[in-house]
Amino acid sequence: MTTYSRRKFLDTMKLGAGAALGASLLTIPTGTALASVPYFPKPRQGKKLGIALVGLGYYAKNLLAPALEKTGECYLAGIVTGTPSKIPEWKEKYNIADKNVYSYDTFDKIKDNPDIDIIYVVLPNSMHKEYTIRAAKAGKHVICEKPMALNPAECREMIAACDKAKVKLAIGYRLHSEPHTQEIMRLKREKDFGAVKLVEAADGFKIGDPTQWRLKKALAGGGAMYDVGVYCINGARYATGEQPIAVTAQEYKTDPVKFKEVDETITWQMEFSSGAVATCTTTYAASTERLYVAYEKGWAELRPAFGYGPIKGKTNKGEMDIPHTIHQALQMDDFSRCVKENKESPVNGYEGLKDLLVVEAIYKSIGSGKRELVNPV
Amino acid sequence: MTTYSRRKFLDTMKLGAGAALGASLLTIPTGTALASVPYFPKPRQGKKLGIALVGLGYYAKNLLAPALEKTGECYLAGIVTGTPSKIPEWKEKYNIADKNVYSYDTFDKIKDNPDIDIIYVVLPNSMHKEYTIRAAKAGKHVICEKPMALNPAECREMIAACDKAKVKLAIGYRLHSEPHTQEIMRLKREKDFGAVKLVEAADGFKIGDPTQWRLKKALAGGGAMYDVGVYCINGARYATGEQPIAVTAQEYKTDPVKFKEVDETITWQMEFSSGAVATCTTTYAASTERLYVAYEKGWAELRPAFGYGPIKGKTNKGEMDIPHTIHQALQMDDFSRCVKENKESPVNGYEGLKDLLVVEAIYKSIGSGKRELVNPV
Repeated sequence: MTTYSRRKFLDTMKLGAGAALGASLLTIPTGTALASVPYFPKPRQGKKLGIALVGLGYYAKNLLAPALEKTGECYLAGIVTGTPSKIPEWKEKYNIADKNVYSYDTFDKIKDNPDIDIIYVVLPNSMHKEYTIRAAKAGKHVICEKPMALNPAECREMIAACDKAKVKLAIGYRLHSEPHTQEIMRLKREKDFGAVKLVEAADGFKIGDPTQWRLKKALAGGGAMYDVGVYCINGARYATGEQPIAVTAQEYKTDPVKFKEVDETITWQMEFSSGAVATCTTTYAASTERLYVAYEKGWAELRPAFGYGPIKGKTNKGEMDIPHTIHQALQMDDFSRCVKENKESPVNGYEGLKDLLVVEAIYKSIGSGKRELVNPV
Repeated sequence: MTTYSRRKFLDTMKLGAGAALGASLLTIPTGTALASVPYFPKPRQGKKLGIALVGLGYYAKNLLAPALEKTGECYLAGIVTGTPSKIPEWKEKYNIADKNVYSYDTFDKIKDNPDIDIIYVVLPNSMHKEYTIRAAKAGKHVICEKPMALNPAECREMIAACDKAKVKLAIGYRLHSEPHTQEIMRLKREKDFGAVKLVEAADGFKIGDPTQWRLKKALAGGGAMYDVGVYCINGARYATGEQPIAVTAQEYKTDPVKFKEVDETITWQMEFSSGAVATCTTTYAASTERLYVAYEKGWAELRPAFGYGPIKGKTNKGEMDIPHTIHQALQMDDFSRCVKENKESPVNGYEGLKDLLVVEAIYKSIGSGKRELVNPV
């Protein structure tokens, strides 16, 4: 175990975007509250970039804002909200100046605010396109939460808008900055166990409140697939390093009232040109969360694989002794360095588009009952 | 963990066929050689029944014969083989009388041999039907290895032959006698975590020798599906307590030379009338082995789930502290007690038929590219 894990982890950190963290990340006991996880980024490059969060829901409040107290390259500089009652608490807690607080109506004026370098769109899926494009037009770099948008056409519009405005775009794939996930990428790249043959990926949970936006098609685009199914698609893609060429997919519904508008459970299979196969499950009906990769000569498993942590991993050689990290802090620092160094993010708009192309093929296959090709990028 | 596991294990043992073992089964460290696993069956019921093994390949030699040195209700009384050179070693090692040694030509004379009560058919799949029926006609009880036969029609012939001869028939589903598996059955039955919502099952390995009978359709019937895929079908069935009503299935082949005659990788999905869904994978291309069950309010996982042990299990409440056992010894003692008590085996011919009905629907779905109903029992 120890021979495997620590060395590999340090190797990983040297290679990936997380390299900056070096050996200063500490191992955190399982179950530790996020706020107590130490975070020691590398020496800052120039000034901290200012981030404005657009949408102050659960994820912004409980994950992104606390992570921005740990980041080294960026900080929480502004907020955009449609709920004025939320403003005083945020202003006080994060010392946000009045001039950095926007409503959705005043949002476009953010272009004149030099405090804001990056806009993080944390709105319901159907609003991703509009706010990413408005942010780009304001000349700000953008992080847009996953799924990138409702369909590939929207993704292409967003990419084009950011290209035109010469701003960087990243999708909120925090796991690409997470060390266990980076080890899965390294195993693919360095072929410790040979070529990838099979991926099993699942992500699902029993969803609560039947009135939430995630169950409304107009806001969410779809159900479990749009919410957590994209983690399986993305996971199979970083495990294989390939975009799938074809899919088959099946939908199941046991509660047609709660899931009147969106999918409850979808299983799907993806074919890669290397011959690798991925079999995936997403559901709002029960708990499942795992990424398993079988290679010619071994296997690796992350379980949990996609949540906010701690991620846990093992291979046929033993446990991965890789520390728990604050994914969102790593992610936002990684993107901030891309902005500062004028480099494309590894999780740019095309990374989001590729997932939506697969989502498109999955729903097409559910409709046709047949194998469907994934449209090219 | 401890509150969960030991009590549940003892409860399980009280309920199931394994009840006889009580608390005298010991916990065996992982990786212990099978021969060194202690086995303490309950007090014997009458005389030990004599078992004859038909086919002396790897499984008979390395698993069944050693297990028969541990059984309480039965013993290795005879052998049937087409390879005379194997006879001396078996005779000496297991003290088998000359009169209890048969060739395939002399096999039918076994009807006159009072030493043989049970015939265990351990031949390639295509020979299961013939030898089960010949054993029944000889008036002997039969254990037939899984898969029961090549198709449902063969299964029905075998069931009819055993019924007509008034002999008991069991399929070699050793896991039904295995305590972790019995705990999965108990969780379904007693609904600790509510109804079953989702099953994920996978069984596969990278197959070696390209000349082996398992890669020849005439002998094996099919590839990974017939060999280890049936464990996933059976696993989903005992996890849900239901026969699936419909399937979708997909086949993938990366080595058309090695897998010219049989399937390399199949993924399939099963629908149950309760609304539960099972998603399964079997392959001869890579290593995978797991049974995961997600309930309304929790989950259980066996990993490994289907091999000769040690099986390991956990639930959302912690590890299953259930001992390693000799599956084949438990299995043969369980069947011997059914014979002695004139009770139907829980893994009778219908249990084998149900799996083959699903296998039939899976290949039909691969052929049609569509969802296919499972034919009724």
